[in-house]
Amino acid sequence: MSIRYELLTLLRDHGPLSRAQLAGRLEVPRRRLLAELDHLVEAGRVVEAECAGPRRGRRSTLVKLDPGLRFAAVDLDARSVGVEVTDGCLRAVASYSERCDIRTGPVNVLGRATRILEKMRAQGHFTQLDAIGIGLPGPVSFREGVPVSPPIMPGWDRHPVRDVLSGEHGCPVAVDNDVNVMTLGEQHSGVARTVDNLIFVKIGSGSGVGCGMQIAGRIYRGAAGCAGDIGHIQVDADGPVCSCGNVGCLEALFSQEALARHAESAADDGRSLLLAELLAAKGCLTARDVADGAAAGDAVCIGIVRAGGRQVGQVLAGLVSFMNPSMIVIGGDLADLGHILLAELRSVVYQRSLPLATGDLPMVLSELGARAGVVGAAVLASELAYGGPVS
Amino acid sequence: MSIRYELLTLLRDHGPLSRAQLAGRLEVPRRRLLAELDHLVEAGRVVEAECAGPRRGRRSTLVKLDPGLRFAAVDLDARSVGVEVTDGCLRAVASYSERCDIRTGPVNVLGRATRILEKMRAQGHFTQLDAIGIGLPGPVSFREGVPVSPPIMPGWDRHPVRDVLSGEHGCPVAVDNDVNVMTLGEQHSGVARTVDNLIFVKIGSGSGVGCGMQIAGRIYRGAAGCAGDIGHIQVDADGPVCSCGNVGCLEALFSQEALARHAESAADDGRSLLLAELLAAKGCLTARDVADGAAAGDAVCIGIVRAGGRQVGQVLAGLVSFMNPSMIVIGGDLADLGHILLAELRSVVYQRSLPLATGDLPMVLSELGARAGVVGAAVLASELAYGGPVS
Repeated sequence: MSIRYELLTLLRDHGPLSRAQLAGRLEVPRRRLLAELDHLVEAGRVVEAECAGPRRGRRSTLVKLDPGLRFAAVDLDARSVGVEVTDGCLRAVASYSERCDIRTGPVNVLGRATRILEKMRAQGHFTQLDAIGIGLPGPVSFREGVPVSPPIMPGWDRHPVRDVLSGEHGCPVAVDNDVNVMTLGEQHSGVARTVDNLIFVKIGSGSGVGCGMQIAGRIYRGAAGCAGDIGHIQVDADGPVCSCGNVGCLEALFSQEALARHAESAADDGRSLLLAELLAAKGCLTARDVADGAAAGDAVCIGIVRAGGRQVGQVLAGLVSFMNPSMIVIGGDLADLGHILLAELRSVVYQRSLPLATGDLPMVLSELGARAGVVGAAVLASELAYGGPVS
Repeated sequence: MSIRYELLTLLRDHGPLSRAQLAGRLEVPRRRLLAELDHLVEAGRVVEAECAGPRRGRRSTLVKLDPGLRFAAVDLDARSVGVEVTDGCLRAVASYSERCDIRTGPVNVLGRATRILEKMRAQGHFTQLDAIGIGLPGPVSFREGVPVSPPIMPGWDRHPVRDVLSGEHGCPVAVDNDVNVMTLGEQHSGVARTVDNLIFVKIGSGSGVGCGMQIAGRIYRGAAGCAGDIGHIQVDADGPVCSCGNVGCLEALFSQEALARHAESAADDGRSLLLAELLAAKGCLTARDVADGAAAGDAVCIGIVRAGGRQVGQVLAGLVSFMNPSMIVIGGDLADLGHILLAELRSVVYQRSLPLATGDLPMVLSELGARAGVVGAAVLASELAYGGPVS
């Protein structure tokens, strides 16, 4: 880890510090610190100001991030584009999101993000961006900055997302999959702030179940960048055929389509009056309807959520035995199935995983909720700009 | 990573180097290197000698590890104790192993190891050890240097292995579980030398199936030190009850006992003449008999091995999707079920895991074989002595 990166992230996460405090925290000789600070002032990263010191009559120099620093965080999911511009400390300066179907392709969707940014620039929120971080709802080659065969993103395969955005906005860009980005967000400013070895499970209505990992404080992406893709782990050897061609994958049992299928069958055979009425009114049911029904106390919806929780829990139990993480965070837009789902996940994991691995293992809901993606994308942008370990 | 550690491991793995070569490889200022070398000479870690330089008439200073450095590697398994004393470059100086039942308890087993070391000392192989590395066939709290509820090691629970050996031999001691130690060995001098993200799967006759992980070049032990304990991942929800109380664990389906059970049933009902004759002669059958039978071409034994391979493969397939490793190495004393087992594992993993995760994934047999444990224990000792990241 370079001293420059440590210094900049210290200022990002703790706010302004005196030179003496920085020297103490970074444990570097004063001379080396001063040289580094000169360099960073010149590069427009930090500013220094005289201020009253802790002792009367003594003045000290306060160092803070340049207030003109600007990062853009772009959070794409199946149905929306969210954009936030932040300062160097990741405080939001401007924020906007709108509905946008990812299936309309990269030219349209990235064009929307760019137009939102142009508008923010016109409104005076920034003149130049220092870095962009963007999360996509599918597999990404992080090194190349392109999506790779993303199942729910037709037309996006190997589209040069990083190079397109970088060219348009004249700044460095980091592209990652949405689960890694959410993991980064949760680790930086959510429930997992003090945790080194983290599994973040995303339970989404749009793109199924996936997970992100943080190992020894860094996102772990695996050899080909697809670590955490747990949707096709087999849960039931006698289960239904999955879109991938295998049988009994987690995704074939617990996904938007599977939940909707269960709901429609419960509506058809009259097991749930609530679902039957909804089906009659709308003509079809979705995972969202099951979530809403469960939240409203419908027993059949609760049953569907619990059965799904058991299947996700079964996969998680194996991963906990294997990886022995310090914490599991459940996020994604179906995470508001919330405590019903969490109870079921906990029950399976605590029953099935090694006692030594679960003895001290918190399993909790995301603290950032729907904001995890955009917060994480801002962290990603700042890591890139500050010279962090983002590869 | 400290410069001292980098310097010492460079000399360990590449042999003697000139000061100029060291400065180049370590990318440190000459002045800092010389100060470090002075310190290491004084501490008895390295020696320097004048020698002819590459250009005529010029003399250069060659640096090498002190030839008096000695590490002890202790490899315990269910039925034997192996001890090797090496020099600072991990070349064997003396090696000895004998049968020893781990169930006779820590006082007896560690006493045996100590007596072997005393003998080696008396024979002049060393006067003082610089560090000891030891691998145990069960869960270990690496931080505390004690085994934790190890299933096949009655009497060992929380026995202060590290402190006992350290007190007796007057040197630092690192204790780890055998699978992590084998992973370390394979990564240092086996088939995985150039690999960063590695899963090592141990298929042992004594202590079942376990795995070790190397992530970003370091052993990953997890929050409580039990990462890789995959024996109790569920493979078959309708499977047999496991010793842990759950049903259908990998270990209940593929272990010494399970293989012996299958073999005896095949002998009883006459499906395998070879096994029937063995059973008549010996009164019972073991996993070893199945391995030997498979190697001899007995169709029933081959079938038992293949069925086991499918079950291990099923767990591995999930782990590959989750972790996306760069290589999988199969070791342990049943790894000589060899190519039959490997073919089955490969078939399941390549069929079931994500194509992106298996596209470039070698699955190979251990190169070190039975020596992986003792080689890894020596690496562990040297990491400890050289100030490496062994925590």
